[in-house]
Amino acid sequence: MKPQELYEIMSKIPLFKGFNIEEIKEILKTLNFQIKNYKKGETVFFRGDALEQIIIILSGTSKGEMQKFNGDTITIDYITPYQLIAPAFIFGSSRTFPVDLISTENSKFLFLNKDNFLNAMQKDERLLVNFLDEISNKGQLLSKRIWFNFMNKTINEKVLSYIKENQKNGYISFKPSISELAKKFEVTRPSLSREISFLCDKGILTKIKSGKYKLNCENL
Amino acid sequence: MKPQELYEIMSKIPLFKGFNIEEIKEILKTLNFQIKNYKKGETVFFRGDALEQIIIILSGTSKGEMQKFNGDTITIDYITPYQLIAPAFIFGSSRTFPVDLISTENSKFLFLNKDNFLNAMQKDERLLVNFLDEISNKGQLLSKRIWFNFMNKTINEKVLSYIKENQKNGYISFKPSISELAKKFEVTRPSLSREISFLCDKGILTKIKSGKYKLNCENL
Repeated sequence: MKPQELYEIMSKIPLFKGFNIEEIKEILKTLNFQIKNYKKGETVFFRGDALEQIIIILSGTSKGEMQKFNGDTITIDYITPYQLIAPAFIFGSSRTFPVDLISTENSKFLFLNKDNFLNAMQKDERLLVNFLDEISNKGQLLSKRIWFNFMNKTINEKVLSYIKENQKNGYISFKPSISELAKKFEVTRPSLSREISFLCDKGILTKIKSGKYKLNCENL
Repeated sequence: MKPQELYEIMSKIPLFKGFNIEEIKEILKTLNFQIKNYKKGETVFFRGDALEQIIIILSGTSKGEMQKFNGDTITIDYITPYQLIAPAFIFGSSRTFPVDLISTENSKFLFLNKDNFLNAMQKDERLLVNFLDEISNKGQLLSKRIWFNFMNKTINEKVLSYIKENQKNGYISFKPSISELAKKFEVTRPSLSREISFLCDKGILTKIKSGKYKLNCENL
């Protein structure tokens, strides 16, 4: 990767928000960085590997996978460019990869030395606040997901609650997909589809097109 | 509260790990701190209140509560002395209290100015790493809880998985209580009790005393 190309990409990374190209050049000099390439399908890290650097995905997509006791593999999360890898596992008591990370496309990762990064955060408040924001945002997402499932125990409660919070002008889209929503709701995909069909049968929802429904509030 | 008493308490707070009493005295001078007392039953913060300071509970216990759509109130979490309040909501895009915080005993809270705290983290690497550890540990707990429920969709899977991970020498305790575990599993308490009874009926568990069971692996 050409230096200028790297600087351009880095100016889009939330962790370097507020830094201009010149400042990115300067700070990179202090961070003892490395760029590594991974091929499509390659396992970048295994669950349990030590997480000793600040790692950012520059290009390509990766997925976090886990094995169930029965040997099945399930995808926990997709990670897209400019994201920090496992931000909550760089510090704290568990500093290992929480999942297997598999590159789903040819991809590039940026590795920054952790001690140098700590020094840089102490010198530049923007970097410190950006890093705190990144870890906090991840924690906030996780909290919201847990509360949602905690407040809404049954699948019917989860779906109705999702509809109430996300409907726009009487229409509701199940985004990004039924499968992804089923993961968030911590239910199986068929159960979620069944619940949506049930709401259609009761006249609460009317299907417009795949994933999009009209909400008939008078039946709610 | 006498100054010496405050210093003693603060030396036990994870956020000040590695600081001796003299250093705590020095750093407190820079943090523009306040101590506030709350009575048993008092609402310390309402959900949605701005979270503009670093807040630590010095004594007493508080609970985080939320209201369901149907008006029921449920307890999300108990917060005990020396813990940071809502560590993932001090930075990041949502900087408001995620729940109502109610004091369940007469209690004391320490408030530290956020800008001064940022400065202090930039000057002292211990404080920076301690704060990153605190936020990260919270995120790690939330992640583990989500994965557990995600990997184990049915209540039977959740209970068997919990038993496999927590059994000791063929005995299993449901800790801290069936109610608390039901919250973690995101199921109702009666469903969890029913599942445990079912495992007893199948001969997989034999009740020893309340909450403690012998595991009969040959029946698993």
